[in-house]
Amino acid sequence: MSWDLSTAKPPVVVDTTLRDGSHAHRHQYTVEEARAIAQALDEAGVYAIEVSHGDGLGGSSLQYGFSRTDEMELIRAVRETVRRAKVAALLLPGIGTRKELKEAVEAGIQMVRIATQCTEADISEQHFGMAKEMGLEAVGFLMMSHMRPPEFLAEQARLMEGYGADVVYIVDSAGAMLPEDAYARVKALKEALSRAKVGFHAHNNLGLAIGNTLAALAAGADWVDATLRGYGAGAGNAPLEVLAAVLDKAGLNPGLDVFKLLDAAEYVMGPILHFQPYPDRDSVAIGYAGVYSTFLLHAKRIGKELGVDPLAILLELGRRQAVAGQEDWILRVALELKEKEAGALAD
Amino acid sequence: MSWDLSTAKPPVVVDTTLRDGSHAHRHQYTVEEARAIAQALDEAGVYAIEVSHGDGLGGSSLQYGFSRTDEMELIRAVRETVRRAKVAALLLPGIGTRKELKEAVEAGIQMVRIATQCTEADISEQHFGMAKEMGLEAVGFLMMSHMRPPEFLAEQARLMEGYGADVVYIVDSAGAMLPEDAYARVKALKEALSRAKVGFHAHNNLGLAIGNTLAALAAGADWVDATLRGYGAGAGNAPLEVLAAVLDKAGLNPGLDVFKLLDAAEYVMGPILHFQPYPDRDSVAIGYAGVYSTFLLHAKRIGKELGVDPLAILLELGRRQAVAGQEDWILRVALELKEKEAGALAD
Repeated sequence: MSWDLSTAKPPVVVDTTLRDGSHAHRHQYTVEEARAIAQALDEAGVYAIEVSHGDGLGGSSLQYGFSRTDEMELIRAVRETVRRAKVAALLLPGIGTRKELKEAVEAGIQMVRIATQCTEADISEQHFGMAKEMGLEAVGFLMMSHMRPPEFLAEQARLMEGYGADVVYIVDSAGAMLPEDAYARVKALKEALSRAKVGFHAHNNLGLAIGNTLAALAAGADWVDATLRGYGAGAGNAPLEVLAAVLDKAGLNPGLDVFKLLDAAEYVMGPILHFQPYPDRDSVAIGYAGVYSTFLLHAKRIGKELGVDPLAILLELGRRQAVAGQEDWILRVALELKEKEAGALAD
Repeated sequence: MSWDLSTAKPPVVVDTTLRDGSHAHRHQYTVEEARAIAQALDEAGVYAIEVSHGDGLGGSSLQYGFSRTDEMELIRAVRETVRRAKVAALLLPGIGTRKELKEAVEAGIQMVRIATQCTEADISEQHFGMAKEMGLEAVGFLMMSHMRPPEFLAEQARLMEGYGADVVYIVDSAGAMLPEDAYARVKALKEALSRAKVGFHAHNNLGLAIGNTLAALAAGADWVDATLRGYGAGAGNAPLEVLAAVLDKAGLNPGLDVFKLLDAAEYVMGPILHFQPYPDRDSVAIGYAGVYSTFLLHAKRIGKELGVDPLAILLELGRRQAVAGQEDWILRVALELKEKEAGALAD
């Protein structure tokens, strides 16, 4: 039967409330908040807790937003708090360097997740080397994986495996995948990799964070990500407490305490949240168009100036597979759409 | 390949913001709100708009909550507003009678959805007879369908088809299904029914409203329900604007205007919402345990009095397959759990 989980197994669950959730929190976590969240997660049985600026180690900056608390201080606080869970950090080559990674190891991380665009796994070789040299569990992140087909991603994942990755993730950064997309991509990696495990990181822009995570598990995913209350970029991540209930119902609970997580989501995370992520107009548009969330504000501004629907601009950018750094495309696309409209009216 | 939609077809989409959403709105809709919502839905291309008290025609009462505006007035307003969409009402045998159905027809409904517990389709025979006699499109709702296996539901659906149902819905009232549950149930109905179409009505208690709707479509569902912003009972329904974006991406858009729906969700529905439904602690518990939402407050009160975790009570009620009307089980279960705990401590 389709859509069943009969071949799935209980996944390793990584919480990233203190990293992806940092986007939603505008990087304003305090040490007290980090401790409270880490303690609740640790007691509920998650395998690892990721802590760092939303854009990874060294992300605190004018460009990506300044952190209220030094991420090394947050890492130290989490490491001091946990009794069972591993502590992880995200690293984006180009933003984080050897210096930050070394500091993070001294502060207490035992795992690093190295993230590249899904077309650029080759830039991560030296970072995996550093991670292994420092004795870390090393995880690869293929961001914006919806933009490339399964076979292409499998090649990129093989590169990361060759560099020493213990796990490679399909990352649905824009929340743009349908379950069949998540399924096919995870399946391709499972078939391509010989040693490394396969992970899946969901976003909820199309309301499919939990659904896609299940599709990934059906395809054999070994690791999955989640956050308390789905706190994270865009429409947020897979909510950990909901995922735990679902895994438990499906007979795939890896040892999470569902009650404790429901309590943590409500009573620990509830008062900390700046807002509850939800697939609102803007975040649905991001998932629908399959573009970077940073394009949204530009498209809105230019759309308003030119009288062009920002959603139409985003969709066209998605069709052209614009990636981060191609913000200059936005004006060009908007002008073309305006001309096309004028042409249509003149006909 | 599993988890794909290759055999699915564009579904008939019914909006129930003005019926299931009435639960979330505590039955406080005004004529102005109903008109604004109906106009936006009509312009965006939904097939039908369901309007009535959350518990169906005649639901306004001390027991189910009084409506602020007479539902017949709301139906009239919606019928006057729409240009393309059909107008529908829900009817629960035992709550709504021939009298209310006749009034609703006079007020303008063209479709009635007749809802029974998934074990009690046989009580709907005369109501389908009335519907057909009044010239209505007639739809059957098998509520709490997660509680019975696919073959059982197929038998119940066959009864409704025999009574004259044009469509029979698998209704996941508690939002308790996994995608495989939705898939198997819809599939069983597709195989069992000869003439009637098959529908699926989702709730988001386990974060799976969109995911389960896709699973239902993969299994051949012809009709699906949604509401603007997912406004509805429990953790809400499948959000219509998100579903439209997803259907469009999947190549299954039945003619919905995604942009108009995103605008309607944000600018029409946004200001009307009392709150944004979300899988919070309580609604996840309902989906996890698979029990009626009305059990929650009782379980909380009794749990507090006896010092027993309300979630444990709900889970035990789910295991015993308690249905509506069995609220007296709650105290019994709570006392048993308390005794068991005392016994464990004494060991």
